Amino acid sequence: MRSSNIRYTEHFVATADRCQANGHRSGILWFTGLSASGKTTLAFELERILFQKGWRTFVLDGDNVRHGLCADLGFSAADRAENIRRIGEVAKLFAESGCLVITAFISPYRADRDRVRTIAGDLFHEVHIATPLEVCERRDPKGLYGKARRGEIEGFTGISAPYESPDAPELQLDTSGLTVAEGLGRLLEYVDLKFNIG
Amino acid sequence: MRSSNIRYTEHFVATADRCQANGHRSGILWFTGLSASGKTTLAFELERILFQKGWRTFVLDGDNVRHGLCADLGFSAADRAENIRRIGEVAKLFAESGCLVITAFISPYRADRDRVRTIAGDLFHEVHIATPLEVCERRDPKGLYGKARRGEIEGFTGISAPYESPDAPELQLDTSGLTVAEGLGRLLEYVDLKFNIG
Repeated sequence: MRSSNIRYTEHFVATADRCQANGHRSGILWFTGLSASGKTTLAFELERILFQKGWRTFVLDGDNVRHGLCADLGFSAADRAENIRRIGEVAKLFAESGCLVITAFISPYRADRDRVRTIAGDLFHEVHIATPLEVCERRDPKGLYGKARRGEIEGFTGISAPYESPDAPELQLDTSGLTVAEGLGRLLEYVDLKFNIG
Repeated sequence: MRSSNIRYTEHFVATADRCQANGHRSGILWFTGLSASGKTTLAFELERILFQKGWRTFVLDGDNVRHGLCADLGFSAADRAENIRRIGEVAKLFAESGCLVITAFISPYRADRDRVRTIAGDLFHEVHIATPLEVCERRDPKGLYGKARRGEIEGFTGISAPYESPDAPELQLDTSGLTVAEGLGRLLEYVDLKFNIG
């Protein structure tokens, strides 16, 4: 414990009161999956739809966060672990503020994701965007798989670094046979079931 | 640049649209001041009042964040700098989500605060809780000044580590002659002026 003179201060406003005011529960939809599996597209589309319904929602996205909070981190296993730890803590703060936060990170290591589950408890919902590698590689919208195959990127998840699938995600979604609208439909069904206040 | 294969993704929902939906502007009220100056008390009371008015608001508090996001950091100048950098990035994310976020950190170094101003731009409002050292030391609700004077805490701001006052804070509030209600009154006046959507 580095911080021995620290006490925890309680907010006067409980998360439950925030949720009541917002008309929905708060929590974390933790999207995990390969590059080009559809995480970012689905996350931002889901955010838009929920916003239009009047919900409090916000996307934390791998690409975006790495320009700011985690700009000091690279892609080694240790840096990926610290990246995911910080995102988990931030996502928890957003959820405590009443927000349904959607995170879109490859987050390839089971232990890193499980640590977030430990941090966030019941707020954490693991959503495996389970599009198979061959489909992701065929899509390759940023040309990253090509670069990784040619050895121009080191430690690329699925090619030269592992992806550890979740054992028991709250939701699993393989987008390979689905339109974006169909994928969103599945997600909205889950959100309605878990976060709607009846 | 550690992250050369990263592109910035734009949200489909603009911050301005979020503010319109919330009925108020978003931003960061960055409280800075000595230990026991009144930062945390005022921050949590302000949060409660704004929540009751239906505003989106959330406190990031030094004591709380150091249990989570910054649990790996101590109180050296370098660790304080990294602590403030991370909080600045998180506060910016909250502001981008439409929230009026209130941060309550000693944040003693001018350069660290100015870096947050650079990160967050117009969203950043520096609020100097300018209660003098002798008043803070007399209050000493956690007995920390006593410990610092006895040499039981190293690098304690105001005693054995510097506090660099802001040169041109957006708001300055010395709580020594004020009740909590009076201090809140000043803050609410400022919030109304800057964040109310007319």
